[in-house]
Amino acid sequence: MKRTVWTRKHLLGIADLEVAEIEMILDSADSFLEVARRPIKKVPTLRGRTLLGLFFEPSTRTSSSFEIAAKRMSADWVNFSSASSSIKKGETLLDTAKNLEAMAPDLIVVRHALAGVPDMLAAELSCGVINAGDGAREHPTQALLDAFTIRQRKGKIQGLDIAIIGDVEHSRVARSDVALLTKMGARVTLAGPRSMMPPDAEALGAEVCYSIEEAVRDKDVVMMLRIQLERQSRKVFPSVKEYFEFFALTRDRLAKAKEDVIILHPGPMNRGVEIASDVADGPYSVILHQVANGVAVRMAVMYLLDGARGERA
Amino acid sequence: MKRTVWTRKHLLGIADLEVAEIEMILDSADSFLEVARRPIKKVPTLRGRTLLGLFFEPSTRTSSSFEIAAKRMSADWVNFSSASSSIKKGETLLDTAKNLEAMAPDLIVVRHALAGVPDMLAAELSCGVINAGDGAREHPTQALLDAFTIRQRKGKIQGLDIAIIGDVEHSRVARSDVALLTKMGARVTLAGPRSMMPPDAEALGAEVCYSIEEAVRDKDVVMMLRIQLERQSRKVFPSVKEYFEFFALTRDRLAKAKEDVIILHPGPMNRGVEIASDVADGPYSVILHQVANGVAVRMAVMYLLDGARGERA
Amino acid sequence: MKRTVWTRKHLLGIADLEVAEIEMILDSADSFLEVARRPIKKVPTLRGRTLLGLFFEPSTRTSSSFEIAAKRMSADWVNFSSASSSIKKGETLLDTAKNLEAMAPDLIVVRHALAGVPDMLAAELSCGVINAGDGAREHPTQALLDAFTIRQRKGKIQGLDIAIIGDVEHSRVARSDVALLTKMGARVTLAGPRSMMPPDAEALGAEVCYSIEEAVRDKDVVMMLRIQLERQSRKVFPSVKEYFEFFALTRDRLAKAKEDVIILHPGPMNRGVEIASDVADGPYSVILHQVANGVAVRMAVMYLLDGARGERA
Repeated sequence: MKRTVWTRKHLLGIADLEVAEIEMILDSADSFLEVARRPIKKVPTLRGRTLLGLFFEPSTRTSSSFEIAAKRMSADWVNFSSASSSIKKGETLLDTAKNLEAMAPDLIVVRHALAGVPDMLAAELSCGVINAGDGAREHPTQALLDAFTIRQRKGKIQGLDIAIIGDVEHSRVARSDVALLTKMGARVTLAGPRSMMPPDAEALGAEVCYSIEEAVRDKDVVMMLRIQLERQSRKVFPSVKEYFEFFALTRDRLAKAKEDVIILHPGPMNRGVEIASDVADGPYSVILHQVANGVAVRMAVMYLLDGARGERA
Repeated sequence: MKRTVWTRKHLLGIADLEVAEIEMILDSADSFLEVARRPIKKVPTLRGRTLLGLFFEPSTRTSSSFEIAAKRMSADWVNFSSASSSIKKGETLLDTAKNLEAMAPDLIVVRHALAGVPDMLAAELSCGVINAGDGAREHPTQALLDAFTIRQRKGKIQGLDIAIIGDVEHSRVARSDVALLTKMGARVTLAGPRSMMPPDAEALGAEVCYSIEEAVRDKDVVMMLRIQLERQSRKVFPSVKEYFEFFALTRDRLAKAKEDVIILHPGPMNRGVEIASDVADGPYSVILHQVANGVAVRMAVMYLLDGARGERA
Repeated sequence: MKRTVWTRKHLLGIADLEVAEIEMILDSADSFLEVARRPIKKVPTLRGRTLLGLFFEPSTRTSSSFEIAAKRMSADWVNFSSASSSIKKGETLLDTAKNLEAMAPDLIVVRHALAGVPDMLAAELSCGVINAGDGAREHPTQALLDAFTIRQRKGKIQGLDIAIIGDVEHSRVARSDVALLTKMGARVTLAGPRSMMPPDAEALGAEVCYSIEEAVRDKDVVMMLRIQLERQSRKVFPSVKEYFEFFALTRDRLAKAKEDVIILHPGPMNRGVEIASDVADGPYSVILHQVANGVAVRMAVMYLLDGARGERA
């Protein structure tokens, strides 16, 4: 492992990363992947490190993936899912963070509804910061596990044709994925209803189209985004039934993709909304591999960031 | 310990278990009991195992008993008391479980308001599943700790006369206990108001009666069930005062039992509702022993299920 | 470390402690302070001990400080932030505690809105009890970390002039601090609006005044209390703006203190209410040192109480 060249202390977004850094994370994740297959799923790598989970937005999947990753590396994980309690008492976010920092954590993993919060914390705190999702901006570990899964299944990312389909406008996953996949040499197409496409979609470096049939055609990888039904009060589409009819990934539509296409979804899935159930469970789906890979990718990120401390201190 | 003969990967209900298996759990629990008395309450048995607590119903006692049991065996315990978060986002229960499974846990401990959820998970997941209570169906580790406590105090279960009194209809504890205790050769009497007795009560293999005085008479063991006051909107009894008057375990009623009777209660207790305070705290009560034994029984269950993996893999 | 002379099993309040005991805690904390600076922040001191956090009032800062302290000493920490669940089901607080005790914890850390709860638990349970805040009565580990911070910055406590300013009536921090600091030979002045001063303020052993200018004058240490805005429905002051105008610590007011004054605040802070932002972040503030010291002080308390067990068992 080329650990000596990793110098970054924070993981704030894919936008910051060099290709070589992305490859270093994916290579490290490769070597951590087998830990989950051992009967004793435990390596001493982060023994005695204190890692804090600071989830200001609810999260089952991501926070537990980080927690399992941390514990498998023998770190002490302390959870602040209810981190809002001090903030409810009138404290600023930065004061909460500074207080936690004073307890000498090694890494803080933060999710927040506001874009930029992880960057602000990284600028103000002396410990490392991992962005676990900030607003609609970035979700870098999700993009890294997506890339890892694609590389694992396809042997490469370079030169692949990849469609990302759904509510692009509100998706931090889409933003991080476009950044990562284009950096690694893939051609990315963003697709979705016009009401879900950001005005600057093309500026992200991807092609944009408004038809799922067109988007899927000849693709190596199709990545479906989650429709956030809980936000449907804003009515960005007329009904679930119509969304399914016009934008869901169904078997018929999938037939237009390459023969060995793989399907990704960041979860949680809405079966019968953005994806047909038989497609989600079908032979092209690598959705559960994404989850398994997520633990290894997060182990790799924590390991590399932790190593950077020595370089800088 | 006869570990080599244990082959079961899941603990879903007492109904499935052979007498020999029940004895194996109780014997293992015996040997784990002393861990709690050591200054260093820690054995390396499950080091590097990942155990997930998936409590869809609130629970202090049971989930903490499992968590303490897991940590005393050096396992990594990850809690999903708020496991509903992905489900609120529209994900199915099975998808949530499959996602968690992809993170390679060794055992999932699940409580759910719907009967059958643990069985469904066991059928679909590759990891082991422990039922920590499903609807009004089964709560096997509670029945095992009850049996352990009875055996510990009485030297045997075979041939004992045992009354289980209260809201039998809604009690998974009663169902698991009747199954276990009759299997082990005890004679069980179920008692409670007619409005709290399931129509098929006799089919459970127990005698049924509607008078607490009659139920308690000449019993070796009296087990009181919790009245779920929070469900009293359904009005299955006229008032707490009347419930106490007709069905509570009082000192007078207890006098009809055998001289060396023991009293169990799964908790949380409603003093002055189903049990008089002086009886709960009196010399016949083994209620707190049940709690202490619960940790040892859960250690035993986790240990045996974990061992089964080797047999099968 | 003079561990052999520590005999106390519980930490319930400063009122109980001898000066020698306070010094023993502060000295122990000194030696634990450097653990947080190591790359491997982990000592084996409490390996195999089970510590329970029983927080009936919400807390981010205090409960996480205890959790981090426990984990850095290799203890197993089990959290009952949602400890109310059994109580919601109709169980008494004492039954909940007795049930938890039956699981053989070594120490219970309890916070409760009612004064006296930790004392009641200590009287009834066989394990050690640490008071993490009870009503408006005591918060001994906060006072200990305040004293530790003062001693660390000033070299001593004896003979210092200390002002504690704000909502004294509802502050357990103020009560514990006055008790501790006067015991250690400091002169303490309590200040705040008349509506926030308890009728018996002088009985606490401190001078009382109603002007912040006067209170701050020539002080070595100024300790600001948090205004509990969430209780402002009771209207103990006309408005936040007026509170700031008459009682906030501002740069102008601070100028009346000694030149080398230090400023403490137990957090969470309301910037612009009881303290001006530039003062909170200024060179005299040791607020974040308090937080860092808090972990070391809690490690010391747990270590000493745990050692007492051997003395008594």
